[in-house]
Amino acid sequence: MKEFDLINLLTPGLPHNASVIVGAGDDCAVLDAGLPDRWQLFKTDAVVEGVHFTAETPPEKIGHKALARCLSDIAAMAGTPTSAVITIGLPKAFDAERVRRVYDGLNALARRHGVAIVGGETTTCPERMFLSVAVLGTVAKDKCPLRSGAKAGDAIFVTGELGGSLSAKHLDFEPRLEEARWLAQHFHLHALMDISDGLAGDLRHILNASKVGAELLASAVPVSRAAKLQAKAESSAKPPLLAALTDGEDFELLFTVAGRSAVPLLDAWKSKFSKVKLSCVGKITAGPGLRLRDERGLRELTLHGYTHFA
Amino acid sequence: MKEFDLINLLTPGLPHNASVIVGAGDDCAVLDAGLPDRWQLFKTDAVVEGVHFTAETPPEKIGHKALARCLSDIAAMAGTPTSAVITIGLPKAFDAERVRRVYDGLNALARRHGVAIVGGETTTCPERMFLSVAVLGTVAKDKCPLRSGAKAGDAIFVTGELGGSLSAKHLDFEPRLEEARWLAQHFHLHALMDISDGLAGDLRHILNASKVGAELLASAVPVSRAAKLQAKAESSAKPPLLAALTDGEDFELLFTVAGRSAVPLLDAWKSKFSKVKLSCVGKITAGPGLRLRDERGLRELTLHGYTHFA
Repeated sequence: MKEFDLINLLTPGLPHNASVIVGAGDDCAVLDAGLPDRWQLFKTDAVVEGVHFTAETPPEKIGHKALARCLSDIAAMAGTPTSAVITIGLPKAFDAERVRRVYDGLNALARRHGVAIVGGETTTCPERMFLSVAVLGTVAKDKCPLRSGAKAGDAIFVTGELGGSLSAKHLDFEPRLEEARWLAQHFHLHALMDISDGLAGDLRHILNASKVGAELLASAVPVSRAAKLQAKAESSAKPPLLAALTDGEDFELLFTVAGRSAVPLLDAWKSKFSKVKLSCVGKITAGPGLRLRDERGLRELTLHGYTHFA
Repeated sequence: MKEFDLINLLTPGLPHNASVIVGAGDDCAVLDAGLPDRWQLFKTDAVVEGVHFTAETPPEKIGHKALARCLSDIAAMAGTPTSAVITIGLPKAFDAERVRRVYDGLNALARRHGVAIVGGETTTCPERMFLSVAVLGTVAKDKCPLRSGAKAGDAIFVTGELGGSLSAKHLDFEPRLEEARWLAQHFHLHALMDISDGLAGDLRHILNASKVGAELLASAVPVSRAAKLQAKAESSAKPPLLAALTDGEDFELLFTVAGRSAVPLLDAWKSKFSKVKLSCVGKITAGPGLRLRDERGLRELTLHGYTHFA
């Protein structure tokens, strides 16, 4: 059984209560904590040695990545993170200096975004470091874009460049908190999420939640330099466009706005965030499915795109 | 380096912000989320296969224990839990039925206490199941007992019976949420926590936080049947009183009230919770240190009591 099948098996049975606005299934849970104008956001994520980092990863980057993944999910709701708690599993003979440096990286990122680290649990994990983070945040009730709001005719945008993240960026990325809040403040975002499993895979979550389809324009997909270099260096590497569509751990924003807002949004973005690329990569369609348009025409993208591009 | 030394190394450097009323160090973090009359509580905890349960543990009990530990920390603030998120680390070839049963146990406990399970993360942990839970709750601002409020002359109480928990109870215990809220509602609790590392060890946290000492009465410590049976069955087992003072995972409440409230509290408790034992086990003293009074007189309890009792 795959992870997604397991999640589909477990999610329908989860207990709810009256405070739950959005439960498991979006980037964060959305909770009514009793505040007049804001929802609360709640999210957990984990990184594991040998899976998300290695024994050789600089410890500061481990801590940075562990928190940054959760903050990226708060960004995916256009929210503001407020506090976090940490569970760390360690071998019995752990290296205290390594753990201190993990926390240095985590604390530095937390400070930059005003996040308090308010508790933790230290436990034993004999074979490898296991770091689980839970984060709280808030978002204005009328500015909390879900995955389910995309509409036919919407323009689809992504921030930054995609693909090849595992060669470097996945340990250093800065969560797009400021960018997401600015976007939600100035434009009506119909749908928003962060890209952690590749544009092709994650866009499908928006399409499923919104009951729409999409058409991507191959030439508009912002392929990262890392993905291009990898394709040149290794004959077995994915072609760059495939990497941009399917590589994990980009942690960029993916969102849709009404088609008429596309040009004003691009203009306003350029004057506000001159150093961060923003690309309109396609449009939402009423008919279902995900298609890619390139010089050879329009064709269906199957799950993760492998069969068409490999 | 031991766990407590690591926590002492890391805690001073943790980032704070204006929302933090109590950060790392009490049973839960206490946060000002902007509600007029309530604080928010935030806590994380974890259970690991081979450490807190085994491959043979009935899966429902694994899920129950993972959540119950966190709910016991909410009880330790006299709070009400509201929602939780779960991280589960699993070997690549996991048993989906086992995971479903873990969630069955967790969900059943959550439902009994009105807790919504609002999200989760599934990740890889090749050698063993790793289950981290983060829980949110709330508590009335004027009814949130910390570890730091014990005063000389206070009576010290514990609920239930202590010791021998690992023989059975640690997988089945019901967090003392209702009892703690009733206590805080009807009496002025000076200090409150849950007992997870043994009465002798955990009482020390209250003494240190409150800058006081304590005297325990050996004959008043409620020794569990499990601890007595273990001592009879195995010549190498701890004497029952030592087990009651130092065994982990009791998850009972430990609290102090002004001495004059001791008798009215015992009377009111008996008519409210006739099935749960409540014992006055000693008193808080102005002078520092932790002493035990038995038929041989008064003597100092060293850390965990081993040297005097073994």
